[in-house]
Amino acid sequence: MNEMNIVKFPSREAWAGILRRPGGNAADLEKTCEAIFEEVKRDGDAAVRKYTWHFDRAHLERLDAREEEFEEAGRSLDPALKAAIRLARENIEAFHRLQLPGRRERVDARGFRCWQEARPIERVGLYVPGGSAPLFSTVLMLAVPARLAGCEEITLCTPPGSDGTVHPAILWSARLCGVTRLFKIGGVQAIAALALGTGSVGRVDKIFGPGNAFVTAAKQRAATRGVAIDMPAGPSELMVVADETAVPAFVAADLLSQAEHGPDSQVFLLALDERLPALVAGEIERQSRGLPRREVIEKALARSACVVPRDREECLEMINCYAPEHLMLSVKNPGEWIPSVRHAGSVFLGNYSPESAGDYVSGTNHTLPTGGHARAHGGLGVESFMKTISFQEISPRGLDCLGPAIEVMAEREGLLAHRNAVRERAKHARP
Amino acid sequence: MNEMNIVKFPSREAWAGILRRPGGNAADLEKTCEAIFEEVKRDGDAAVRKYTWHFDRAHLERLDAREEEFEEAGRSLDPALKAAIRLARENIEAFHRLQLPGRRERVDARGFRCWQEARPIERVGLYVPGGSAPLFSTVLMLAVPARLAGCEEITLCTPPGSDGTVHPAILWSARLCGVTRLFKIGGVQAIAALALGTGSVGRVDKIFGPGNAFVTAAKQRAATRGVAIDMPAGPSELMVVADETAVPAFVAADLLSQAEHGPDSQVFLLALDERLPALVAGEIERQSRGLPRREVIEKALARSACVVPRDREECLEMINCYAPEHLMLSVKNPGEWIPSVRHAGSVFLGNYSPESAGDYVSGTNHTLPTGGHARAHGGLGVESFMKTISFQEISPRGLDCLGPAIEVMAEREGLLAHRNAVRERAKHARP
Repeated sequence: MNEMNIVKFPSREAWAGILRRPGGNAADLEKTCEAIFEEVKRDGDAAVRKYTWHFDRAHLERLDAREEEFEEAGRSLDPALKAAIRLARENIEAFHRLQLPGRRERVDARGFRCWQEARPIERVGLYVPGGSAPLFSTVLMLAVPARLAGCEEITLCTPPGSDGTVHPAILWSARLCGVTRLFKIGGVQAIAALALGTGSVGRVDKIFGPGNAFVTAAKQRAATRGVAIDMPAGPSELMVVADETAVPAFVAADLLSQAEHGPDSQVFLLALDERLPALVAGEIERQSRGLPRREVIEKALARSACVVPRDREECLEMINCYAPEHLMLSVKNPGEWIPSVRHAGSVFLGNYSPESAGDYVSGTNHTLPTGGHARAHGGLGVESFMKTISFQEISPRGLDCLGPAIEVMAEREGLLAHRNAVRERAKHARP
Repeated sequence: MNEMNIVKFPSREAWAGILRRPGGNAADLEKTCEAIFEEVKRDGDAAVRKYTWHFDRAHLERLDAREEEFEEAGRSLDPALKAAIRLARENIEAFHRLQLPGRRERVDARGFRCWQEARPIERVGLYVPGGSAPLFSTVLMLAVPARLAGCEEITLCTPPGSDGTVHPAILWSARLCGVTRLFKIGGVQAIAALALGTGSVGRVDKIFGPGNAFVTAAKQRAATRGVAIDMPAGPSELMVVADETAVPAFVAADLLSQAEHGPDSQVFLLALDERLPALVAGEIERQSRGLPRREVIEKALARSACVVPRDREECLEMINCYAPEHLMLSVKNPGEWIPSVRHAGSVFLGNYSPESAGDYVSGTNHTLPTGGHARAHGGLGVESFMKTISFQEISPRGLDCLGPAIEVMAEREGLLAHRNAVRERAKHARP
């Protein structure tokens, strides 16, 4: 196993180079997306079937999963996994329930009141990637908040295997969490079907979920065509801050767990103890021996680095400069660091909060901002599946109070019909 | 003045035609945006100056407003307008303060806790369109929530007049609401400068505010380049529901106030009383006589319609089908309608809540979802200027409880390093 690059006390000019994220080729992706979107728009399900054969090598007569497939999944799934998924669902639901927005109302004694009410987004599309493993945990992370929000139609798309099936853990989780319909469609064709609608797939209002660079480009295309999206997704990231109280074996395990996500994942160790890098490197070497995804890990570590910052302040600046998706604070008093963490997706405190707890069962959402998007975005939550409507009710007396200000402002903005909306009411006999 | 098209009891098949929104030519805009973005990226301020001359006919040595200009604005603005703007700011601040998110924490007795904290988006860019009038009200609607959220750098861009100046009401409002820097830059070049950064303009994390089709296309381009945007903006819209308790003069005034926004604005009257359309048309004719923006209004009304639905249920379906930016409920018991309004930006109840109150002073935000985006988006709020970070802290005992579920789930997803993050900790002597 190659070792991670170790950088001691880098100068500030060197930061951008060290913290650089791997880039992609956006233009190529956009062309592919455009072609598939056009075809799905024109040919609907036929285009979806064509691309499902092309990319997933599956021939599908019917695109959605049948009731029997859900039932069979329930029978075939082993009880230990079911119990684990149930525990995860309970914790995710309990944590996300706290996010349900309340009504916010302001009553002004002068005769008017304004308030906001949240409403579910009616039709949502959830994307669950395929690839080397069945990501049933992502089903939980998307469907539980959608259900809590009260979304009416929850459509899930996930690519089928070449035998036309979907993994039973995905089917069972989808049913457990209240997914309305599940389609065996993946990639750009899935996003196009959700964005445009086909004979089988209903058009949705917002699309959620992770995916590869093609899926991300397809979501961005959907966004410019009037369908909302959750956030731009990219390769996963982890920054671990460790001091002398950290346990090298734990730090190494967490770095490895992030690195195994994909060859374009990126991990950083910010070591506040100069002895740590060598100790962690030794542990990485030892622990990675038995791992099946060793090749993926090796590639990810090649894009990663172990940095020794000068002090705590520099360390915090580096965190906020990178804005990591995941941040672990394996330090003495992690709580003291919190007020200074300005940009991060999800933060794990102390030695016994591994990132994989948040990936699966603690209750926080694992759909998080990558690529520096943590500067402007948080992770998914119940609010992501809702929107607010503003209301106001003004009494005749209230309008007497607000009217003169409306008139002068409207007049100065040159909008005289806006002003007249007040004047016409002032002329009228009061009820 | 041409009359609005009146449609009685339209069949459901006819709805799409009646409620169709005016469309644009997206491809052309994208090409223009691409060219300007490339040039701003390459030449920075020089490109911004070039396009400011090209589009706004202003030669600017310095792009930002100087301290003396703010001071001069304070001296020249008349007291009545200042008082009106102050009243508006107070109400907007009071209503938006309710939106400041609190901490949400879940403590599980088994030994773990998860919580969320909101953080301001550090650097935000506000766009205030120019054109025929100085939209100082938009300064309030963007800067007040940005300030409440705690954003550190609030950069405002607005196009200059050909004499290189910005209207004193915009300068004074910007200063009043805590804008950090104000640049005299408009259009695509402003969005490009905010998204990419130039010598003068710092790059921002999120861009807010309305604008014409070019500005909207530029914001969407910024969004695919890693900068967040508030929402896609489009021409303004109003739907008025009126029954026999409505006052035709008020309804006409509100329709006119919306129509004067621009030739591509759209207004609908849903009349639950068959006599209303003729009465409202008469009032539109009378009231529009003195209006300076009569030509704009005429064009907007040509895209609009007056519909007589069969009953209340059909009326509600039509509202939710269109998902209007503004909705007025000029009906007997407007409160009874609220639970059935699923998609709308801002709702005005009763005869004395004109839409212009929400545009200026009642406290609700006037930056709202248009073009049917109310299906997935709410209007701007304090949360639009913040993001959440998740935190979790697990005790050794808590990890004993969650660990087995993490292990089985990680194993089934084929992510063994994720599983090992638990196992390495289990092996270790407990603190």
